[in-house]
Amino acid sequence: MPDALPPSPFAPPTFPPLPEIEGMHIFAAETGARYTGRPDFMLAEFSEKARVAGVFTTSKMPSAPVDLSRLNLKSGGGRIRGLAVNAGNANAFTGAAGARAAMRTARSLAKRLSCSEQEIFIASTGVIGETLDPAPLVSAIKAASFDVAQASDWSGAAQAIITTDTFAKGATRTAKIGKQSVRINAVAKGSGMIAPDMATMLAFVFTDAAIPAHLLRAMLNEATHKSFNAITVDSDTSTSDTCLLVATGVKKVDGPALRRLDDPRLGQFRKALTDVMQDVAIQVVCDGEGVSKLMTIDIAGAVDDEAARRIGLTIGNSPLVKTAVAGEDANWGRIVMAVGKSGEMVDRDRLSIDIGGHKVARRGRVVPGYDETPVARHMQGQRIHIAVNVGAAGGKAQGRTRIWASDLTHGYISINADYRS
Amino acid sequence: MPDALPPSPFAPPTFPPLPEIEGMHIFAAETGARYTGRPDFMLAEFSEKARVAGVFTTSKMPSAPVDLSRLNLKSGGGRIRGLAVNAGNANAFTGAAGARAAMRTARSLAKRLSCSEQEIFIASTGVIGETLDPAPLVSAIKAASFDVAQASDWSGAAQAIITTDTFAKGATRTAKIGKQSVRINAVAKGSGMIAPDMATMLAFVFTDAAIPAHLLRAMLNEATHKSFNAITVDSDTSTSDTCLLVATGVKKVDGPALRRLDDPRLGQFRKALTDVMQDVAIQVVCDGEGVSKLMTIDIAGAVDDEAARRIGLTIGNSPLVKTAVAGEDANWGRIVMAVGKSGEMVDRDRLSIDIGGHKVARRGRVVPGYDETPVARHMQGQRIHIAVNVGAAGGKAQGRTRIWASDLTHGYISINADYRS
Repeated sequence: MPDALPPSPFAPPTFPPLPEIEGMHIFAAETGARYTGRPDFMLAEFSEKARVAGVFTTSKMPSAPVDLSRLNLKSGGGRIRGLAVNAGNANAFTGAAGARAAMRTARSLAKRLSCSEQEIFIASTGVIGETLDPAPLVSAIKAASFDVAQASDWSGAAQAIITTDTFAKGATRTAKIGKQSVRINAVAKGSGMIAPDMATMLAFVFTDAAIPAHLLRAMLNEATHKSFNAITVDSDTSTSDTCLLVATGVKKVDGPALRRLDDPRLGQFRKALTDVMQDVAIQVVCDGEGVSKLMTIDIAGAVDDEAARRIGLTIGNSPLVKTAVAGEDANWGRIVMAVGKSGEMVDRDRLSIDIGGHKVARRGRVVPGYDETPVARHMQGQRIHIAVNVGAAGGKAQGRTRIWASDLTHGYISINADYRS
Repeated sequence: MPDALPPSPFAPPTFPPLPEIEGMHIFAAETGARYTGRPDFMLAEFSEKARVAGVFTTSKMPSAPVDLSRLNLKSGGGRIRGLAVNAGNANAFTGAAGARAAMRTARSLAKRLSCSEQEIFIASTGVIGETLDPAPLVSAIKAASFDVAQASDWSGAAQAIITTDTFAKGATRTAKIGKQSVRINAVAKGSGMIAPDMATMLAFVFTDAAIPAHLLRAMLNEATHKSFNAITVDSDTSTSDTCLLVATGVKKVDGPALRRLDDPRLGQFRKALTDVMQDVAIQVVCDGEGVSKLMTIDIAGAVDDEAARRIGLTIGNSPLVKTAVAGEDANWGRIVMAVGKSGEMVDRDRLSIDIGGHKVARRGRVVPGYDETPVARHMQGQRIHIAVNVGAAGGKAQGRTRIWASDLTHGYISINADYRS
């Protein structure tokens, strides 16, 4: 891996200002385990009222931290007091030694926070297959200054979890639950091995709202579906994907207790949660390895939303579509190919395609008098919009979705083939 | 597309000598429709005794020639008298005009051969979405000299069907059916958009044996599974995949008529058919766009052969595995990742990996004292061997398969992004 990759063309000038979230403290440490001169360890502590929901990779080769966090989520009743995330070593495919390293890290944090080990969540990202030495992590935990009342370092925390990312990723939103104003902050990382199937590489979302664990779970699933499960960089699903949603419980909601997802008081919060998660998910795509353009792919006319999602991801993952976008080539035949290989119910002779808002194909063939000029101009931009109606069920099907994907460039090959990782 | 792509490092010095197949005549013509100064139209005629079997793309966006050939195969009782294959225009996603062009080409050939239109098979490869003008094809058919007794031009025929291929692909085998010696010739094309799901881009296999259509069908399915369905270049399935097996019927088999696939007299022929189809399928991979290395991936310990095939293809399609191979990086963690994302039944803690015959991982982690030196040396070669045992069913599962795949290089990006196609 080169010392410094060229930044993504989508890299923002600075990390966005994230406000404090009451009831938690998040900060970064340097363990020196793999990187030097940069934070590589994100630590967070939460008030006793905090609750958590999580989604994890569907990989059959989950990392040791995924095993541990999944177990704690199941057995701990949605309680969370501490979170530790290291970058540089994924602690994946490391057998019993890896499981022990994860447990030692969690135990050390539980001791510092005087809580149960079940209330600790951990995540790791980086190289697969190298035994993780927990000693530098344990030292950093021992040396850290914990106190939930301290000001948080959101920028440092976001910086601490990146690997081949070229910028740190964060976003924030506010919402009202009933009359109570609450905040939601999100940080994420991810650059290659991005085709999340339950979550992204790593994403952590925090709110000061008081929301019971079962509702956090339902809302996280809903928002994940529309954000991290709707992006792709390279179709490769990581062993470490983890997305946690933590509610510190400081901001109580007035009126009766929140019990049901369809409680109208949650409407604005659910929208804001999906919004903030889409924001960081799109940031992940915009920092995809070697990315030069962002594709937004709208699918309509599928038998259901899930079918639409699979068709959209098939387009977004197709190397031939991705290279056409990279090459600014309005080669819409490759979109036809990708829809065809998706295996979903589609109607070739009703298929329509728009690129950049320009009609390209209608009813299974190119539009009469098709003029490529405006489409070619759109392809020269940085944000490419593709809309496909697949015309299922005689054109009556209503399934739709939106997918975000990066293109495939020489930069991706350079990052993954030209340098030893 | 550049005028001349650099040849694949696997390109043979010359086209292999293919012997005559009695009862057929195959040759090439130049239509000038898209290319100049090269043959772009393959024509073949067959004796009245000829029989055919075929497999086609599973794409939901099949080309007009696929529609027509599939229909003729169904309705024609396995009879075939003529075959016409043009390169440069796939006649895919071309609506009613495309269907008419396919029909006009078939009708013209039927007229020249004085046979039924149902006995004509056609295929097209090239650009998707451009309306095909049948006139140059019809002119070439009218001008061609047909006579099943003429000597064939195998090299010209193989040359006529290529597009971004850097070499023409052919192979031949002999076998005995009972006491009768028979020949099998195969030609194929394919370079990008190769992740066949029933066949490859285009492959045509010819034998002088007399074999009824239903047995041809069974044997073609069997051999396709182990050849074209076991290769991948870029995971993109074409709209035009077509594989036909034609038996001219000249070489009669002594003894009772062939009726069943398990007739012991067919044993040698079935093996030779699989063998010749694997030969051209591997040639397709070895001419994959931008290929620098050929991966042979052996999967064992899967719940069944089909699961093994899906795991092998997941490894062979993974951009991160492909770029690691291109970069001569013994990054076996990416193989772990790919097995994990396959979604198949596997046991992380029993997984074993060998590269180039060297033990890399056993029982879910790297082998003790792992020395990367010999593995790194193997990665510098042109043919990379990866063997994975996924340890399903407590290590007792017996599903296995072999997959061939190309790597992913700057050449692929250059071919598909840097030039307008």
